[in-house]
Amino acid sequence: MNRVKCFHGECSSFIEFIEGSLRDSSVLPVVTIASTRTSLIPGISLAGAEPKLTLLTPTLDVEYLISGEVLTLKLIPTTPEGIPTPALITRACFKLLNLSALVVNAGAFKEPKVPTASLPSRVVGGRIDVEEALPKGTSESLFREAKYLGRLLGSYADLIVIGESMAGGTTTALSIMTALGFNAWGRVSSSSPKNPLSLKEEVVRKALSRLRSGLDVFAVNDLVGDPLHVSIAGLALGAIEAGSRVLLGGGTQMCAVLAILKKLGRLRSDYLAIGTTSWLVRFTPSIKDLVIDIEPKVPIIYSDLSFSNSRFSGLRSYEVGYVKEGVGAGAASILAMLSGFSRDEVLGAIESEYERVAGSA
Amino acid sequence: MNRVKCFHGECSSFIEFIEGSLRDSSVLPVVTIASTRTSLIPGISLAGAEPKLTLLTPTLDVEYLISGEVLTLKLIPTTPEGIPTPALITRACFKLLNLSALVVNAGAFKEPKVPTASLPSRVVGGRIDVEEALPKGTSESLFREAKYLGRLLGSYADLIVIGESMAGGTTTALSIMTALGFNAWGRVSSSSPKNPLSLKEEVVRKALSRLRSGLDVFAVNDLVGDPLHVSIAGLALGAIEAGSRVLLGGGTQMCAVLAILKKLGRLRSDYLAIGTTSWLVRFTPSIKDLVIDIEPKVPIIYSDLSFSNSRFSGLRSYEVGYVKEGVGAGAASILAMLSGFSRDEVLGAIESEYERVAGSA
Repeated sequence: MNRVKCFHGECSSFIEFIEGSLRDSSVLPVVTIASTRTSLIPGISLAGAEPKLTLLTPTLDVEYLISGEVLTLKLIPTTPEGIPTPALITRACFKLLNLSALVVNAGAFKEPKVPTASLPSRVVGGRIDVEEALPKGTSESLFREAKYLGRLLGSYADLIVIGESMAGGTTTALSIMTALGFNAWGRVSSSSPKNPLSLKEEVVRKALSRLRSGLDVFAVNDLVGDPLHVSIAGLALGAIEAGSRVLLGGGTQMCAVLAILKKLGRLRSDYLAIGTTSWLVRFTPSIKDLVIDIEPKVPIIYSDLSFSNSRFSGLRSYEVGYVKEGVGAGAASILAMLSGFSRDEVLGAIESEYERVAGSA
Repeated sequence: MNRVKCFHGECSSFIEFIEGSLRDSSVLPVVTIASTRTSLIPGISLAGAEPKLTLLTPTLDVEYLISGEVLTLKLIPTTPEGIPTPALITRACFKLLNLSALVVNAGAFKEPKVPTASLPSRVVGGRIDVEEALPKGTSESLFREAKYLGRLLGSYADLIVIGESMAGGTTTALSIMTALGFNAWGRVSSSSPKNPLSLKEEVVRKALSRLRSGLDVFAVNDLVGDPLHVSIAGLALGAIEAGSRVLLGGGTQMCAVLAILKKLGRLRSDYLAIGTTSWLVRFTPSIKDLVIDIEPKVPIIYSDLSFSNSRFSGLRSYEVGYVKEGVGAGAASILAMLSGFSRDEVLGAIESEYERVAGSA
């Protein structure tokens, strides 16, 4: 009956810790958002109905997550085929759990119309095939600012769950991991069932040509990364320093967070886990290879949620590899299931939410 | 030996609650900031070396509070005479307690260069003698947004302490309380030993001429109030709805928060107290009359901090009525003393901090 499963590592003590934190009402979810112009490269991201909308997706995702409505545009984020954002899953699960999320803005193209913790150095990331990712010094500032916030939040909750929304994120994650010396080629996920791996690699090779020797982690991220992953690394480290554990809610992008912490010499593997979806581990099992290459002790947990029997084709599309993960959907469903909600109850809550926002199958 | 005292009401159970929350590390301090162009009226505010700097004071206050340095200008906020901001007290006490504050931006003239929770409807308030305070509908939005944040924070800490920084705030507080039907004339405090009461009243009478009958609380605040107090009201209500108690850290301005909650029918007096300084209750004892007029059950607690024996003239000036309160200084010193720090230890910490930032007496 246990619908939360282990994909890699020693998961059981972390799962028990999550259960205890849920019982103590001491789980605080954060959703970190940013934009990168890398998402504008045609074909690189399905996280938006068309490339230029991908810049807005993080903003629309959190507006919907927090308020139940999209405020900046009257448009729920979807893929070009109309498959809805995974924020739907996150929202439905948080509603079941009566949890509210804190949005952290690390560089969204547009400020969300919901309360948001803003990092002062936030900036939209550059298109990494043709320009530097961030103004010099930005990564270090974002990391420091996020760490302050992480330490603050970590003082009040036993478990900080960090989700993300940034279109183009698997491409910049590939760039970060490769630049930091990890073997990530062919291993990152995608919002598409046809992962455009060769396009991603072409983009990343152009970015990496910008590197020179002797750069530190932050300088590397300034040149070839993005504002999101380094901010999540700061949040996570701050929370851990304050005594919390951190569930990184996401797919292969969260491996870029691990890579940054590892290279900083600050990866505390006992205090971190990745929490994701069944679709991610099914369609991108290489997430395990990434973790093994970076820090094999970090567990990968996933929820055994299935949309096979959904009434809605938009949800059934997840079962053929669309979307897979995002906005902390996997982590949120892990929390719901560890709180005792059955697979059917979770699916029912998601379908009600789908019906409310999308209207029809 | 107890240096935390009761100025009004039944304080003891609230003080015990604070002590318990401190023992459980479950006290979360928030500093809410905003600007109002009302502070530009010559003579109305000493919270800045000159009127135009008063718009920046909230930003500089929280930059200093969080980072130990003023980042936007290289200028610690002072009165025109050079008496330093009460943020000095707040910072020294939070350092003793190892507490970090969350900044909430409800409409600062300039975004602080420290992590800040931003309310999307934030806006600098208008100069209430000559213009409406806020665009129509803003107060209701700020209240709702702040309530979301308050509910989120209140889910993780037993006690939320809310301080504020906004120059011109006692004038707009007078306007709000009067407009809502409370007798506040002659009863609000000031950062000056010579409270410019007749100037404040002239400004407020002009503002009140804008009112018409049949307006609700939010419409009144849009016309004659400011972005700060209604946001604090939302934060406080949200935190209380989540099960926390709230210590409003400030002087007579916090009575405007009570007035807003009272008129909304949402003042939960068992869950709220005002926490302030010895200087405030000594120089502005009318705070008690305000509370009695609005909701007599709300206790007023203060810390018996004294700067009489300080080595620094800038601090001794507090003893003749300069500054008095702000940036949650009173509440922060209450927390420090209830944690067991003696009056001398608190004074010593403040003097070290003063020495670090101001250099000399």
